[in-house]
Amino acid sequence: MDPYGLRRVVSPPGVLPQRAEVLDPSLPLGEDELAISVEALNVDAASFRQIEGAVGRDPDRIAAELLRLVRARGKLHNPVTGSGGMLIGRVSAVGPRHPAAAVLRPGDRIATLVSLTLTPLRLDRIRAVRPEIDRVECDGEAILFATGLWAELPEDLPETLALAALDVCGAPALVARHVRPGHRVLVLGAGKSGALVAVQARESLGATGALLVADRSEAALDALATLGVADARLRVDATDPLAVLAEVEAAGGRCDVVVSCASVPGTEMAAILSARDGGTVVFFSMATSFTAAALGAEGVGKDATLVIGNGYVPGHARLTLELLRRNPALGRLFQERYAR
Amino acid sequence: MDPYGLRRVVSPPGVLPQRAEVLDPSLPLGEDELAISVEALNVDAASFRQIEGAVGRDPDRIAAELLRLVRARGKLHNPVTGSGGMLIGRVSAVGPRHPAAAVLRPGDRIATLVSLTLTPLRLDRIRAVRPEIDRVECDGEAILFATGLWAELPEDLPETLALAALDVCGAPALVARHVRPGHRVLVLGAGKSGALVAVQARESLGATGALLVADRSEAALDALATLGVADARLRVDATDPLAVLAEVEAAGGRCDVVVSCASVPGTEMAAILSARDGGTVVFFSMATSFTAAALGAEGVGKDATLVIGNGYVPGHARLTLELLRRNPALGRLFQERYAR
Repeated sequence: MDPYGLRRVVSPPGVLPQRAEVLDPSLPLGEDELAISVEALNVDAASFRQIEGAVGRDPDRIAAELLRLVRARGKLHNPVTGSGGMLIGRVSAVGPRHPAAAVLRPGDRIATLVSLTLTPLRLDRIRAVRPEIDRVECDGEAILFATGLWAELPEDLPETLALAALDVCGAPALVARHVRPGHRVLVLGAGKSGALVAVQARESLGATGALLVADRSEAALDALATLGVADARLRVDATDPLAVLAEVEAAGGRCDVVVSCASVPGTEMAAILSARDGGTVVFFSMATSFTAAALGAEGVGKDATLVIGNGYVPGHARLTLELLRRNPALGRLFQERYAR
Repeated sequence: MDPYGLRRVVSPPGVLPQRAEVLDPSLPLGEDELAISVEALNVDAASFRQIEGAVGRDPDRIAAELLRLVRARGKLHNPVTGSGGMLIGRVSAVGPRHPAAAVLRPGDRIATLVSLTLTPLRLDRIRAVRPEIDRVECDGEAILFATGLWAELPEDLPETLALAALDVCGAPALVARHVRPGHRVLVLGAGKSGALVAVQARESLGATGALLVADRSEAALDALATLGVADARLRVDATDPLAVLAEVEAAGGRCDVVVSCASVPGTEMAAILSARDGGTVVFFSMATSFTAAALGAEGVGKDATLVIGNGYVPGHARLTLELLRRNPALGRLFQERYAR
């Protein structure tokens, strides 16, 4: 038994798959492993933007770069951003000692809920690149270890919709733990995870407290406004901490909980300054710098609990799909913006 | 009022002082600022080594390079390492609207607890360079903003001892918030902050729970053993997560609180695997990778709260100095190992 997938690590020896430079996706399937015939990759937004920045927006060049990355590492692990994404496909084989052996059968369609940064992957072909939803349609094979999380794709929701939501399902689940009635909450970044977080925050707040949503894009704010959950929209660049702070102050003051869903680097100080003393900042942005957050809070003497957005919270997939089912406007927004 | 010191930023315009290329230390003192007649700089170790590597070990050349750096940027912010340090000196003037206006008087000796990377500084003369403790004795003037943290130097403790402890005083203060009686606690890394954290954890636990301390260095574990606070010592390399997990399991099981004080990269998974489901990991190591922690916990399906070690906790300086006073063995360990 090898619940963490050590057998797949080529280099450096002895590290876990996420830290590995190179994985081997070609070994015979272990008794406690699961094989997936891959249909599509949902690439992490920060990673997709970095690749576009490096090779340009031509789909063929993006595809070539993704193939190169996966060939080099045996996984989709962007060496610049450190991030990956998730995938969907059909189960092709289930080892008899995999925890899902009694539940999944070949042919079942599933999404992986662990990062592509630790998922052994072989890409045979990229059929389409869809930058507008950070998605790549492809053929290939991936391996899940015994500890690797997955979710069956629901039958009552469009696939692209479910996938787009499952991709960031840890965010609303963690927010549900931190937001209490009466809180002032700021969501920094009105994109995909920002929308889920905002809806969950509103459910956690009920009619109490205040929910502010900030983004530099008027279009993103307009889209989020269709959900009817935010009390204030702040059009401001999250890389300008003092501008964000001024808007937050003007909207009624600093917040108990700040949730960073911004997809660009350099937004740590905006999140930290927007929290009240004793408040909590939850960083979901994969562009977050640990030292910028730790030293930045110290530098301004801000007593805030700084939380790394753990992508796993028990029940996160179900919570997120239920959120979509209860909020048709959220489903429509996802369908229009992230699941086309 | 300008609590973050924007008025001192020369370039680029609008950023906070830490991100600035150049600060202006020569402006007249603001009503909410504090001026310090500088006596010594404690240069960040990584910065000091980089400077030695660049100009050699001749004290005169090191002094010239430090003078050049500070003249160019208006702060001691090593452009290669990105790090600074801290300083000590005597208060020379307190603006009437500075928060310490009622507390500090000219002549009081203080240490700054914010990084030199955001502290406006003019250096007039370097009197001595002491590479063995990364220290420079000098004359000059520094400015603290309203949000800039400081601590009065205690009269009953050797100055080098107080400085060594104040340098990492956020760690034990944050641990005091997270550790509760009955907890199992693992401290990963038995160095300077690890020692403070272990002593604080034992005080928070009292006679209950369990305190494990892990380090790859027998000498570090021996030194920590003189404190008599740990229930178990694990000699293990924190970059080998499965080895750490095996030791933790053998010592009684996973922990409620894991505190990472390791000084090398690649220790995130050892900390995460060692936490029980529902536990907390506090990362103080500046070598922590945000994505390695966030994706790593998700990758192994670990439901743990991941906390970025904010260097500021109210009362942190006082808590740490009191810890030293109550624990003479801790003071001796610091004096021998970190305060020569």
